Amino acid sequence: MAATSRDLPPLYRQWAEHYRQAIAKGALSAGQRMPSVRELMQRHAISLSTALQILRTLEAEGCLEARPRVGYFVCSPAAVNLGEATDPDPRMPVSQLDGKEFVGINERISLWLEQGRLADVRIDLGSAMPAPELFDGATLNRHGAALLREFPDILVQGHSRPGTHPVFQAAMARRALDAGVQVAPQEVMATLGNSEAVNLALSAVAERGDVIAVESPTFYGLLQAVEAQNLRALEIPSSARTGISLEALELAVQQEPRLKAVVVVPHLQMPHGAVMPDEHKARLVDFCVRHQLALIEDDIYREFLDSPQPPRPLKAWDRHGQVIYCVSFNKTVAPGLRQGWMNGGRWHTRIHMLKFAKTRNMQVWAQLLTARTVEAAAHERHLRRLRQALRQQRERSVQAVARYFPVGTRLSVPAGGLSLWIELPPGASSSRLFEQALALGIRVAPGPMFSNTGRYERFVRLSCGLPFSAEVEAAYVTLGRLVQAMLDQDPLQRVAA
Amino acid sequence: MAATSRDLPPLYRQWAEHYRQAIAKGALSAGQRMPSVRELMQRHAISLSTALQILRTLEAEGCLEARPRVGYFVCSPAAVNLGEATDPDPRMPVSQLDGKEFVGINERISLWLEQGRLADVRIDLGSAMPAPELFDGATLNRHGAALLREFPDILVQGHSRPGTHPVFQAAMARRALDAGVQVAPQEVMATLGNSEAVNLALSAVAERGDVIAVESPTFYGLLQAVEAQNLRALEIPSSARTGISLEALELAVQQEPRLKAVVVVPHLQMPHGAVMPDEHKARLVDFCVRHQLALIEDDIYREFLDSPQPPRPLKAWDRHGQVIYCVSFNKTVAPGLRQGWMNGGRWHTRIHMLKFAKTRNMQVWAQLLTARTVEAAAHERHLRRLRQALRQQRERSVQAVARYFPVGTRLSVPAGGLSLWIELPPGASSSRLFEQALALGIRVAPGPMFSNTGRYERFVRLSCGLPFSAEVEAAYVTLGRLVQAMLDQDPLQRVAA
Repeated sequence: MAATSRDLPPLYRQWAEHYRQAIAKGALSAGQRMPSVRELMQRHAISLSTALQILRTLEAEGCLEARPRVGYFVCSPAAVNLGEATDPDPRMPVSQLDGKEFVGINERISLWLEQGRLADVRIDLGSAMPAPELFDGATLNRHGAALLREFPDILVQGHSRPGTHPVFQAAMARRALDAGVQVAPQEVMATLGNSEAVNLALSAVAERGDVIAVESPTFYGLLQAVEAQNLRALEIPSSARTGISLEALELAVQQEPRLKAVVVVPHLQMPHGAVMPDEHKARLVDFCVRHQLALIEDDIYREFLDSPQPPRPLKAWDRHGQVIYCVSFNKTVAPGLRQGWMNGGRWHTRIHMLKFAKTRNMQVWAQLLTARTVEAAAHERHLRRLRQALRQQRERSVQAVARYFPVGTRLSVPAGGLSLWIELPPGASSSRLFEQALALGIRVAPGPMFSNTGRYERFVRLSCGLPFSAEVEAAYVTLGRLVQAMLDQDPLQRVAA
Repeated sequence: MAATSRDLPPLYRQWAEHYRQAIAKGALSAGQRMPSVRELMQRHAISLSTALQILRTLEAEGCLEARPRVGYFVCSPAAVNLGEATDPDPRMPVSQLDGKEFVGINERISLWLEQGRLADVRIDLGSAMPAPELFDGATLNRHGAALLREFPDILVQGHSRPGTHPVFQAAMARRALDAGVQVAPQEVMATLGNSEAVNLALSAVAERGDVIAVESPTFYGLLQAVEAQNLRALEIPSSARTGISLEALELAVQQEPRLKAVVVVPHLQMPHGAVMPDEHKARLVDFCVRHQLALIEDDIYREFLDSPQPPRPLKAWDRHGQVIYCVSFNKTVAPGLRQGWMNGGRWHTRIHMLKFAKTRNMQVWAQLLTARTVEAAAHERHLRRLRQALRQQRERSVQAVARYFPVGTRLSVPAGGLSLWIELPPGASSSRLFEQALALGIRVAPGPMFSNTGRYERFVRLSCGLPFSAEVEAAYVTLGRLVQAMLDQDPLQRVAA
């Protein structure tokens, strides 16, 4: 299928990219004056607002700086190379864990996670979680204590009917309705965040050796879950603009008779941040119905989207129970509760029993606390503040990447969320960056964690969950230097120089 | 191996059983005078205390009643048959669930559980859980609220090192030490009760098609877990006196090359209540080390044992990391927290990563609340009260079975815990009893749930978790009548009559 005009990015983004490349290639060099708004309008036959957006975008990314009453000037995006990076010295060398412990749970990812866990991390840019101060801990604790007063038996009530508390079910069904999704309250099942939900969904729809279509790149936890269940992950290219490639999925279903399910994060895909257009959503649901594939929707980041109109989940297009819908409040309400829920579509009864066989249910206090918190008026205000704080942290992080990382570094700025998916210049290795940074107390998530193909060796995911302090900025400086040092050592780069 | 004198029950139990059978067979009939203490001592050449124990045991079981200053008289244990039982009318007939939803999670058990869940249950004798009033809800809630005040970030703190809170780890390591088990604090991993722990243990040590030795009868949740993971359960006979048969295990290991693990509940085995003697524990650990089998110890009921000297877990005999030790506070502290922990022995690192891939971790509030509660002085008092209440409820339940169930009903009275494992007379069916009782609002756990062999059709597990109210007594009356009605309808019985 040829790309249509609808698939192109907006005009201002195309021109911003044009100038970004000009700066990267040195056609516009540091300190040089950028064309003015008027010049841009004339040169490219664009509107005033488009010209302004170009300049603001480049400024937000740290490519330009505004000098009052003079105009915009090109910044120096490249780091000053202060010498070679310190040798890695992780607390637990990989050699001590030979991976045999992790057979079937993706040895490579498990080793990285275990290394990161055992290291002495000062600045964690590796985990996609907002900092504690971005949550509304005071309100949560107040509601939590009130529940303990109101329901003396809340922690000691055993439940003869394993399941989910009706108050939680009703609250979740109402919220789903607000998002355009119709779910009967009794078909809301509480889960331990989305990890458990996606694991249960996979158990319910596939058996050993079956194939699961995942996005590429995708969240490493999904690759672990697929492998831990003796399933095979088939990586379908996913665009940072529109998400999973429907064309590639069509091919996959023809070539792979054991394909049983598709797993997608439709809103702010992890790691690259794509938001799937509505038209794609409709086509994807229709495709899964036609081919009898379970469509597992991990809708964990929807509320992080900077959008006046919150998007509708895939589940809103589901008329056949084909979509298994998974929601989590882990990153918006309270990581300490791990409260999520799911609706299993036509696999719901089976999923319910699998849940019973694996972890049982009924942490009623956490369910009621989540329901009460998200139904309070203060919750929408909290979400707005959270989005705003993350927007600022993302912008500062984008600027830091532009300023401190070597020329040739690229990233697509996501429309919300917690992470940046950064492409390093040729010659850089994010696996090495991971090890070198960890030895300096900085944790990052190297690109190869997000795929089984080794395809993202030049990518790194950095979390914007931390307030952008001087220490965080210093970490970006360090990371930039580590990357620059790799380029300096790269024989191809040396030959070119 | 021949039975040794050490394996026989105490003398008073042997004689109590002798008289129980005499009453059941009509050799001693209702209203008849029981031999006096003096007569028993002379007749059987036994001590005064043994004679007294015989009479008290039979009284506790409802076989005898004491008439002051006269002596003991035989009770009428058989129910008056008031007619035929009501036809079953479950809310969701089995035919609506055809079991296809439950392939691989033990269709039979799943259908029973789902039926029980959907029915309108008034008296639940089917789930082995103490009633809320037997817990110390007030203390729990007080500690819970205090934690929310003391740690403002406790619900919103994300953790860069997925794992278990060090305070919880330290408290659990101390408690383990008190039980004779040495575990390093950093090797304590929090779990969602024992269901998750046993599931993780199975995932870590076995793969599809491998064989797991389980006790027969055993907790149905274990059979579900084994099947849900595509493993095969090999049922090893388990005695209500000494637990799993070591002789049968020896045979199994010779005949079954894919045997990978043994799962046992060493203290108050579910359902029959056996407590494994220390000598058996030592032999079992040694056996598993010799044959390189993982020994998964589900130590959920240890603290329910009525014993002045709390027994030592299998893990206390483990010198090679061969025992995966699983503890839960679900039934002693708070069903609403589902807090447990495990030590994975030599599989600990692998189990930790599997946990991460499946449900992540770190419900810090629940962990700290559990630690604070079990370390407080009040906790031992709570456990004593809990054991005492359960002892009374068990005794009343045993009396009710003796009084209202048909002649020929048998049970071995456990030394603690929550359940009675009852053998119904020939001609009775616990599957039918389950359905008939459920239609009357009474839930029981039919024997075939505790095995894949269909071997326990005449057994039923009744929970003693509820205070023995008039309603509970009425439920026993109803159950006795339902069983009697089956016997009356049984052609063999009719021919005999």
